[in-house]
Amino acid sequence: MAGYVSEAVIKRLPGYYRHLRELEAAGVVQISSADLGRRMELTASQIRQDINCFGGFGRQGYGYNVSDLKGHIGEILGIDKKHAMIIIGAGNVGNAVATYPSFFKEGFETIAVFDKDPRKVGMKTGTLTIMDISEMEAFLQANPADIAVLAVPAPDAQDMMERVCALNVNAIWNFAPTDLKPEADTIVVNVHLSDSLQILSYKMAHRDE
Amino acid sequence: MAGYVSEAVIKRLPGYYRHLRELEAAGVVQISSADLGRRMELTASQIRQDINCFGGFGRQGYGYNVSDLKGHIGEILGIDKKHAMIIIGAGNVGNAVATYPSFFKEGFETIAVFDKDPRKVGMKTGTLTIMDISEMEAFLQANPADIAVLAVPAPDAQDMMERVCALNVNAIWNFAPTDLKPEADTIVVNVHLSDSLQILSYKMAHRDE
Repeated sequence: MAGYVSEAVIKRLPGYYRHLRELEAAGVVQISSADLGRRMELTASQIRQDINCFGGFGRQGYGYNVSDLKGHIGEILGIDKKHAMIIIGAGNVGNAVATYPSFFKEGFETIAVFDKDPRKVGMKTGTLTIMDISEMEAFLQANPADIAVLAVPAPDAQDMMERVCALNVNAIWNFAPTDLKPEADTIVVNVHLSDSLQILSYKMAHRDE
Repeated sequence: MAGYVSEAVIKRLPGYYRHLRELEAAGVVQISSADLGRRMELTASQIRQDINCFGGFGRQGYGYNVSDLKGHIGEILGIDKKHAMIIIGAGNVGNAVATYPSFFKEGFETIAVFDKDPRKVGMKTGTLTIMDISEMEAFLQANPADIAVLAVPAPDAQDMMERVCALNVNAIWNFAPTDLKPEADTIVVNVHLSDSLQILSYKMAHRDE
């Protein structure tokens, strides 16, 4: 597929996908690197360099076909395939993930939600019934999952990661406000909400510098 | 305060704060750059360089006082001050932000939640009653806010940002899956959940490269 892709380019991939999806929805068929750059606040040459990185696309002077490029970037992102997710923790964050409309459209299907609180077990989140965390191992043996979403308090997160990894769920989307210590073959991507809010606070405090 | 701080160092600041808070809670008084580096997966020299950036702290061979450094980084982040937030959109994401326990502890107080859906208006989220979006302007004139959290669908986000900016709320924490076009004096920090999940998918697809 593509050659070596740097971490900075990887981080820009979802932005490309998002903008191309918006352009496609708006009926745009073709776009130049200059126009795509203006939308994404990147230079035309940066856009061309990134897209070359993905395996070369478009022809000098013709720009890019929006649908083709979106499809190609979707493949690189691996979102042309289906992913089965379980969610651990049925608090507000877990519920938000379970019912977020666009994940399903992008092939991420939540197949189970677990919680340790007996008051939540048996309740619905979206179309799913919340299961007791003690049922997780048996469930995963019968229903393999690719991704575990950790929406539990920080002190529970490491233990939960280890439990799902023992059942071959080696990709973790972590919302717990702590840094996990994964095994070498486990992939962790964090959504640290407090960190993001603190960055906003930093930028407010240093606005006039 | 501190000298020039690069974007990369800014992004690490919340991580420092989080680890120092965990260390403080565990009763650790003093920590060396080597030990802090091991925790944060940075080299000791990287840690020393970062902390010098914040204005120089600790003495060679003595390490850092955990509480002092945490307090100092909290000041740099601006989280030693209170912030008043409004949340626009009382769906699952808006509710998760409204009730996320640690934001309040870090000085971010949600003072109002708005929605345009009449079925949600009047309902509770945490201790707050959801207000109609048409009441937002009058509310903000009487109750100034620092931060607006956008938890609305993508097509509504730009318009909502412009409405709050007109009332001097110039810091936006954006959960809508779109890139806003802010005025020059408006700060936007995005939480693009789909982007984060796609990065996880990318890493899964390219695990063995």
